[in-house]
Amino acid sequence: MLKNDLVLKAAKGENVDRVPVWLMRQAGRILPEYKATRAKAKNFIEFVKNPELACEVTIQPVDILGVDAAIIFSDILVIPEAMGLPYQMIEAKGPWFEKTIKNKADVEALRIAQGEDLNYVLQALRLTKKELNGRVPLIGFCGAPWTIFAYMIEGSGSKTFSKAKQFLYTQPELSHLLLDKITKSSINYLKSQIEAGTDMVQIFDSWAGVLSEKQYYEFALKYINEIVAVIKPLAPVTVFAKDAHYALKKISETNCNTIGLDWTIDAAKARTEVGKNMTLQGNADPCLLYADEKTIAKETELMLRAFGKQRYICNLGHGLYPDIDKEKVKFFVNFVKEFRF
Amino acid sequence: MLKNDLVLKAAKGENVDRVPVWLMRQAGRILPEYKATRAKAKNFIEFVKNPELACEVTIQPVDILGVDAAIIFSDILVIPEAMGLPYQMIEAKGPWFEKTIKNKADVEALRIAQGEDLNYVLQALRLTKKELNGRVPLIGFCGAPWTIFAYMIEGSGSKTFSKAKQFLYTQPELSHLLLDKITKSSINYLKSQIEAGTDMVQIFDSWAGVLSEKQYYEFALKYINEIVAVIKPLAPVTVFAKDAHYALKKISETNCNTIGLDWTIDAAKARTEVGKNMTLQGNADPCLLYADEKTIAKETELMLRAFGKQRYICNLGHGLYPDIDKEKVKFFVNFVKEFRF
Repeated sequence: MLKNDLVLKAAKGENVDRVPVWLMRQAGRILPEYKATRAKAKNFIEFVKNPELACEVTIQPVDILGVDAAIIFSDILVIPEAMGLPYQMIEAKGPWFEKTIKNKADVEALRIAQGEDLNYVLQALRLTKKELNGRVPLIGFCGAPWTIFAYMIEGSGSKTFSKAKQFLYTQPELSHLLLDKITKSSINYLKSQIEAGTDMVQIFDSWAGVLSEKQYYEFALKYINEIVAVIKPLAPVTVFAKDAHYALKKISETNCNTIGLDWTIDAAKARTEVGKNMTLQGNADPCLLYADEKTIAKETELMLRAFGKQRYICNLGHGLYPDIDKEKVKFFVNFVKEFRF
Repeated sequence: MLKNDLVLKAAKGENVDRVPVWLMRQAGRILPEYKATRAKAKNFIEFVKNPELACEVTIQPVDILGVDAAIIFSDILVIPEAMGLPYQMIEAKGPWFEKTIKNKADVEALRIAQGEDLNYVLQALRLTKKELNGRVPLIGFCGAPWTIFAYMIEGSGSKTFSKAKQFLYTQPELSHLLLDKITKSSINYLKSQIEAGTDMVQIFDSWAGVLSEKQYYEFALKYINEIVAVIKPLAPVTVFAKDAHYALKKISETNCNTIGLDWTIDAAKARTEVGKNMTLQGNADPCLLYADEKTIAKETELMLRAFGKQRYICNLGHGLYPDIDKEKVKFFVNFVKEFRF
């Protein structure tokens, strides 16, 4: 049914004749078309909750940048909202929760989210799937339980997430109770996404890097494991734990399909850690796209050769930054698509 | 002359009969005594520039916490200031530079700092050395050239330091010119610190983690290397490159005495990377000090056993957070001092 299923093939370990490429945050402020669509909603939350607008910006990078996959435009924090903790997105500041989780009563008051609580995302997925008309696969996603937990405790972004980490150290049992509720909610959510037409899913553990190795395994990876176990039989799963350089081998043991890598990870070392039967995704430094075309070409070729043609999905090591020139992004995407080993 | 030279012995690889301990940001907001001294200055910059006040807060943790070293109270950004780029410290926001470096003329306009430009730090060191009266060694420090560069370009803290990284990608030659000036300034500064009585020095590369491995070697480690080459014959040198997990082996090749580790680094892996002839420093998660005493004791014992008694200086993997209870810090310090293998 899909005209271009390179990303899915790579995720499943099937042979491809070229490396597929998509970009984290490909739908976003680098595109004037995104800004025009964004202007139709009165704020970020309304934007995320509008299936037509979400569909529009999801498809824009497929048309404009020529990427090999669409990723649904949404936000990882729809899960806390569906569980009973609404948030605002404050311009130039980031997410902000009026109420945060402080004690057992707060945790008990949270619902386990069901797919229908996130109907607006499911509608956006169905609409996008239809509009894409099989051109490229549609990627769904959720935040990893630890990352969602971190926001629910901290109430906003943070350099250290010291409140959330304090909660792990001082209330480990309650932490597990909350992480379990987030995990169940995330599983329900991803299942519904797949029923709505999502071809593969990515779990974003954006704040993996603030934890120690031991805490990461106990409070983060345990729950990713649970999600992968249920979701992988339904669709290929990618786990991207930013800055969790120490955890690559253990992440591979979740038996997910693909591991996302940030730009501090060496391709050869990662391959040694995770073995042959795992697809790797990443890991260009987003700032490379500030460089001239010659430098982009040179560094991208080095990266492609380091990862190799098979079992690899080209991407950045983090999301696109908003002030990156879209022509440079197009150049990068085209370079990858035209590259032959 | 020193009554307690455990930290120096450990740094030099000499045998110690217990593990020495000090804490990054041990002079700071966890101590009411610090706050009282801080209140005597009208702002942070005036505080840093006042030798008597700097001496006072440098000695407080030796008296109150019982740590095995004092580290001079100062700021890494005194170097940009001495080179011609003044800054402000904005409450709850961090450093802010009115003028930043944008082009070649800006770089050329910068002075190479001389020791005497930082006379207020040298006075603070002399005063502290005298007041300490040989109780424990006095540690001096500077920011690593890349970290100083990052602030000079970005003009403030940043999650991504994307402007500074953009500068590296788009103006590599000019970047090297600026890094060279910072390096020469830092060497002058550290030499003067040692002349003023500093027993050992630490180079803080706080923003190592935003660079890729390749850029780290080209734009960061190269200059740390130059500093170590000049300074090590004068005093033991510690290099702490936060989040540069990939660079431990290369940092050990600078031939510094001690490598600081953040809390994401495994002790055994670090030892394998750097070899036997290198002292390791770190790496408790600062958030561990939010836990109860039983947990602190358990985790600290694991850490001590993982690093071993020799060639190790106990510390955190980052600075103390301001809301940590000083009694917990005392408990941690005492636990380390009383621990026997």
